[in-house]
Amino acid sequence: REVKLLKKLEKQRERERELAEKQAAEQEPSADRGRHHTLSVALPGSILNNAQSLELRTYLAGQIARACAIFCVDEIVVFDEHGEDVKSVEGDFEGIGRRGKACVQLARILQYLECPQYLRKSFFPKHEDLQFAGLLNPLDSPHHMRVDEDSEYREGVVLDRPTKPDRGSFVNCGMRKEVQIDRQLKPGLRVTVRLAEPQKPEARVRKGTVVSTHHPRTVSGLYWGYSVRLASCLSTQAVLLCAARGICLGAGIGARSPQPVPVLSPRHALVVFGGLEGLEAGVDVDPNLEVTDPSVLFDFYLNTCPNQGSRTIRTEEALLISLSALRPHIDEAVRTPSTS
Amino acid sequence: REVKLLKKLEKQRERERELAEKQAAEQEPSADRGRHHTLSVALPGSILNNAQSLELRTYLAGQIARACAIFCVDEIVVFDEHGEDVKSVEGDFEGIGRRGKACVQLARILQYLECPQYLRKSFFPKHEDLQFAGLLNPLDSPHHMRVDEDSEYREGVVLDRPTKPDRGSFVNCGMRKEVQIDRQLKPGLRVTVRLAEPQKPEARVRKGTVVSTHHPRTVSGLYWGYSVRLASCLSTQAVLLCAARGICLGAGIGARSPQPVPVLSPRHALVVFGGLEGLEAGVDVDPNLEVTDPSVLFDFYLNTCPNQGSRTIRTEEALLISLSALRPHIDEAVRTPSTS
Ligand SMILES: C[S@@+](CC[C@H](N)C(=O)[O-])C[C@H]1O[C@@H](n2cnc3c(N)ncnc32)[C@H](O)[C@@H]1O
Ligand SMILES: C[S@@+](CC[C@H](N)C(=O)[O-])C[C@H]1O[C@@H](n2cnc3c(N)ncnc32)[C@H](O)[C@@H]1O
Repeated sequence: REVKLLKKLEKQRERERELAEKQAAEQEPSADRGRHHTLSVALPGSILNNAQSLELRTYLAGQIARACAIFCVDEIVVFDEHGEDVKSVEGDFEGIGRRGKACVQLARILQYLECPQYLRKSFFPKHEDLQFAGLLNPLDSPHHMRVDEDSEYREGVVLDRPTKPDRGSFVNCGMRKEVQIDRQLKPGLRVTVRLAEPQKPEARVRKGTVVSTHHPRTVSGLYWGYSVRLASCLSTQAVLLCAARGICLGAGIGARSPQPVPVLSPRHALVVFGGLEGLEAGVDVDPNLEVTDPSVLFDFYLNTCPNQGSRTIRTEEALLISLSALRPHIDEAVRTPSTS
Repeated sequence: REVKLLKKLEKQRERERELAEKQAAEQEPSADRGRHHTLSVALPGSILNNAQSLELRTYLAGQIARACAIFCVDEIVVFDEHGEDVKSVEGDFEGIGRRGKACVQLARILQYLECPQYLRKSFFPKHEDLQFAGLLNPLDSPHHMRVDEDSEYREGVVLDRPTKPDRGSFVNCGMRKEVQIDRQLKPGLRVTVRLAEPQKPEARVRKGTVVSTHHPRTVSGLYWGYSVRLASCLSTQAVLLCAARGICLGAGIGARSPQPVPVLSPRHALVVFGGLEGLEAGVDVDPNLEVTDPSVLFDFYLNTCPNQGSRTIRTEEALLISLSALRPHIDEAVRTPSTS
């Protein structure tokens, strides 16, 4: 057993060495480490209504969040398949378990999970929708830093703390020390901070610069979580027009088999999923759509699981299956000229 | 005792399988609609211990079952990652929620879900493990027939009903009429029945022939559910030696990227997954294995989700992701000379 242990240690050291070499190779100033394309997913909030208990409703939202994080999805669009609460997207939200409120609840749980744990008490006051948040599996994505983890970027919240007029605000980045940024911002704002190398270990604060949320992705190629948008129906700008930025894929069992996607370097891909009744339901009810066949809405309408051994695939399952099947094709399609 | 019963059932199915494959091979006229390769999945039962409530424990087992059905998995091997209850596989099973009993519980829920609804009361007496079975999403696979559905094959249970000495037993196949088969079998047996065309609509019974469980797959290319096996550790015959029948793939984050699998027409593929601590845990604890690196156990050790945006992928997620990513490669590898 000891031999095994030693072997294991050796293996580990070797792996670490390889990793370090890889990182060193990647850090060359000339090389572009950034990811310049984005991936969005759209799905109806109504899928929550299909859960059999309030706990499972929450768990389902968590499954969606994790599937999107695993595949580095940058944006999740939750659309209203039934066109019922077009207005409620703007208004108040009254509680868990009520039909038609599913979109808002799904969006809220997705946002909650995306937020680094140390920032949650700043941005997510107690809410009925989050009653069973304790059951959610964490995203464990790279921007969810542990307290002593070393990293170039961190998410933080601007603190309500007086600073000298010529100095920047203090930010809580979930570290043992607070971070003083390069400018004054409104307390309560969520910011992405690029940390400066610590000058003196004994200094009371770290220094940092505020950057855009996209910075970690476009400059350093890091996955930095997703944003969440609500859309009142399938055809809104938030869903289909976003395809104008790139290719738009629909996922449906009635569709053809997955094909390589021969598109010229779009910077953006959107994959649209249906709910219990498929994308047909969202198309039927949409006041802006004359068509009944969802396939005409997309650049490609794809059956990502040919010969499935179950009559239906649930949306949360279809997400993992489809993103896994489509990824090589999307990667191929979005590969920009500079990197290919 | 129950475990023994389950095992016996499995044994029976296996014997039938071999018989059928022989029969099918002999029967061949011309057009071959059958599927002649099989797919197995192996995973540790300990993943259930990672669930946060008894309800979620059950739900997780259901996720495994559905993932396997969606990808037409023919056999699920539940192995004991900790080598703890090597004996308990043979012994009594005492109930939900206890560590070390996870393998048996997972196996039981998998079998429960595989069994067509109309047969469950015959084969699954009330049991603690199935306390939350109401939360499970149905497999909805082709052999789960609705009462009026027309089909060539059906699963059934032999009824305890006297028949004339020269006539076959009566079987409940979940239809409005009972089926009289071609031979006398012991009441309580689960059988696969090939239904004869109804001669007279007014007849009180349908006629049918007992076939092996593998008949629907090997002759008609239908997905006909999975069998479940328990293995006391990773290296047992049930897991790794089964790879002797074909190719053996391991799934792990530490592995290389997925590659096409250049193997000459094996009739069988096995994909092995790890639990919370990865396949390394099962390898470390296995008394029969000298190695520490899981990769040497497999024909291919594959990272099926390169650049994952979460630090860990859960086993139930890895199942959908990996089977979706590997399917084109497995299909390619198992394509028999006659069909390629
Ligand atoms: C429960 S399914 C919808 C089933 C619906 N009865 C239909 O026929 O479309 C929910 C969603 O999962 C996705 N999905 C299910 N099976 C799929 C497949 N084989 N290929 C691609 N997407 C699928 C689709 O986006 C679908 O709208
Ligand atoms: C929670 S993960 C195990 C994580 C463990 N810490 C490790 O490093 O392997 C559970 C199982 O999911 C599968 N899995 C997770 N990520 C994977 C990946 N990127 N490629 C292939 N399989 C993966 C593996 O079979 C793994 O044993």
